[in-house]
Amino acid sequence: MSHRFAARYLIETSLDPQDAAAEMAGESSTATFVAIPGERASIAEMHGARIDEIVDVEAPLAGSIAHPSASSVRRCEVKLSWPLENTGASLPNMLATFAGNIFDVQSVNALRLIDVELPSVLADTYRGPQFGVQGTRRITQIEDMPIIGTIVKPSVGLTPDETASLVGRLADGGIDFIKDDELMADPPHCPFDQRVDAVLDTLRRYTERTGRKVMYAFNITGEVDQMLRRHDKVLAAGGNCVMVSLNWIGVSALAHLRRHAQLPIHGHRNGFGTMSRAPGFGVDFRAWHKLFRIAGADHIHVNGLDNKFYEPNESVVRSARACVAPVFADCGPTWPVMPVFSSKQTVWQALDTYRAMKSTDLIYACGGGILGHPDGIASGVESIKEAWTAAIEGVPLEEYARARPALARALGAFAA
Amino acid sequence: MSHRFAARYLIETSLDPQDAAAEMAGESSTATFVAIPGERASIAEMHGARIDEIVDVEAPLAGSIAHPSASSVRRCEVKLSWPLENTGASLPNMLATFAGNIFDVQSVNALRLIDVELPSVLADTYRGPQFGVQGTRRITQIEDMPIIGTIVKPSVGLTPDETASLVGRLADGGIDFIKDDELMADPPHCPFDQRVDAVLDTLRRYTERTGRKVMYAFNITGEVDQMLRRHDKVLAAGGNCVMVSLNWIGVSALAHLRRHAQLPIHGHRNGFGTMSRAPGFGVDFRAWHKLFRIAGADHIHVNGLDNKFYEPNESVVRSARACVAPVFADCGPTWPVMPVFSSKQTVWQALDTYRAMKSTDLIYACGGGILGHPDGIASGVESIKEAWTAAIEGVPLEEYARARPALARALGAFAA
Repeated sequence: MSHRFAARYLIETSLDPQDAAAEMAGESSTATFVAIPGERASIAEMHGARIDEIVDVEAPLAGSIAHPSASSVRRCEVKLSWPLENTGASLPNMLATFAGNIFDVQSVNALRLIDVELPSVLADTYRGPQFGVQGTRRITQIEDMPIIGTIVKPSVGLTPDETASLVGRLADGGIDFIKDDELMADPPHCPFDQRVDAVLDTLRRYTERTGRKVMYAFNITGEVDQMLRRHDKVLAAGGNCVMVSLNWIGVSALAHLRRHAQLPIHGHRNGFGTMSRAPGFGVDFRAWHKLFRIAGADHIHVNGLDNKFYEPNESVVRSARACVAPVFADCGPTWPVMPVFSSKQTVWQALDTYRAMKSTDLIYACGGGILGHPDGIASGVESIKEAWTAAIEGVPLEEYARARPALARALGAFAA
Repeated sequence: MSHRFAARYLIETSLDPQDAAAEMAGESSTATFVAIPGERASIAEMHGARIDEIVDVEAPLAGSIAHPSASSVRRCEVKLSWPLENTGASLPNMLATFAGNIFDVQSVNALRLIDVELPSVLADTYRGPQFGVQGTRRITQIEDMPIIGTIVKPSVGLTPDETASLVGRLADGGIDFIKDDELMADPPHCPFDQRVDAVLDTLRRYTERTGRKVMYAFNITGEVDQMLRRHDKVLAAGGNCVMVSLNWIGVSALAHLRRHAQLPIHGHRNGFGTMSRAPGFGVDFRAWHKLFRIAGADHIHVNGLDNKFYEPNESVVRSARACVAPVFADCGPTWPVMPVFSSKQTVWQALDTYRAMKSTDLIYACGGGILGHPDGIASGVESIKEAWTAAIEGVPLEEYARARPALARALGAFAA
């Protein structure tokens, strides 16, 4: 086995960057702090991390913590690589290598994992997205447009019947995709099985009436066996998607679910902020999302343009583009996942999202942007589809809105 | 069900802290950005997060990112709580609540989850540590002393036979506990099953010869089914401990393993730095470790005093004390886990560790501090036990070393 895997870091150090990189390399492979019996030179040669690249960078890393003895600091991009021989084709053990104790090394004032380069031999062990872009389009029967989605709100508190009633109105309004909120899983006031039965009964009657299909992502986040059981419940009841909180079930549990799954897996990224918001430390989306993509997510949340959160647009666009770039560093399957734009999305972000992605292979999820339309849900959905059609056809939004009251009202109702 | 769960955050904000806390409360419970149909006042009352406390704090949060329009900032400790009714007794879904999108809210410049307060009704769903302190002492037959441990080094590269040979010398040297390095799991050059057979064969012969038992934590980190199978392999081969990388298998997979396990689970925290090192964001050990403790870890790594990493001693001590404090906010089982001190530990940290913990209920793991002893492994182990005995008996280290050559040599060989 001659494959390698690699990681790129932004670091800031008060030492010679070569020394900092050497500490990172040692901590992530063979080293301890003294020479010890049994350590052969060949072990370091065969199993030691390799410093592939150290390049100075200009931009400071916000949030860096200066070393007490710092006089001057250097900022660099460092690339390390390891033989796959060290871990085997195992994502959790690769994580222990490139995102393990290496994050604790003393010689850096800041350390950010910005990307990982993984070999496609992992595709022998992991299954990747089962549905991805094409499978999601097949199920929803949507071509040449984004999948227009929404989230059941309020996040918590609705009963199964209240949920189904809202879902019925959303379907009648023309929505393509609906998801549970990530805060809604299997609470006593809205038990999972009852919600599935109520929602799918409503959607089945809708499809019988109209021929249209709506994708519904049920949040099955929970214990390992619970998730498999809930997946099977959704499948048996005629559903077409399940959702998980990626960080809180973890890579191993997602890969386990994927091996069992017959439905698309909608990956919610809540909690990614715990390891990504501080720019000087933690992990970039580019690195983070590859693990869950290889483990088997079909859709992954990327936040949205002009979102209600702290994240700037350029970061959102970088994440979304990463979702459709090849997942492996060498050849092998591309395994694109569908980026999910969400968080205060309205008619106003369609054009910029289309410009940034140059594609409609995405899910565009509006909560308040649809449910809060002054003329109701159907007008909400209509206005979003109109905004996207204007973007795709290259017609200015206000011009397109002139003969389209749903869009016109939305432009007035939501802040640009 | 009238139970609640709570979380404490340190925040820094350029707004009125009440407004920032309100945004956090909304994002983690019922709110979206506009009022929507179906939202009843009673839903917010029954399911909304409650702001229990906002207290100004003096200390600045290093690494805070000032809001562009910041003129003055306020630093506060904020306590929020939610009805368990929102999530049910489900750790992954509680995580989505207190460590989910709340970490992305715009109104804070810094946000750190410092503690969680969880209800003991979780003990009906989760099993907690199966062995903990008492079970580990029973297996190792060690009373009134810390469990003296070491890590197989080099971290990667040894074959099963080389590993077993080193383990034999460590056992002969008097060690109580040995663990795989977290970088060693099931790689091609040291296949798991072969390592288990080689190591346990050596340890069985050692026990037959001496009557002494050594605990060996095999790193079973991997896919869900792999971990169960490897656990069973260790059990069938007569082993007495398994180890996992907590962050990279995740809470759900750990709880799944725990339900199956008949052996103690040694919890390695590598990667905790991705979400803890930047002080302005992320998660404190106190909050983080409770999740894995409730899910079923028996031992949890806490770093060590004067460690080779960036973490200051006061933080290490706080973590270690947390491991033996009650895990639930109300009554119910205490579920202490054994704190594992590790990272450049030598004879020099025994006294301060004992003073900080006022207990010997801990694992004290030395890699180089034992393997690097100038007179070999047996002297390495002996010196560590002597340093601990001196600490417990209140005899100054140098005085105790006078008639004890192993300790004397260690004091000279390792930096104080």
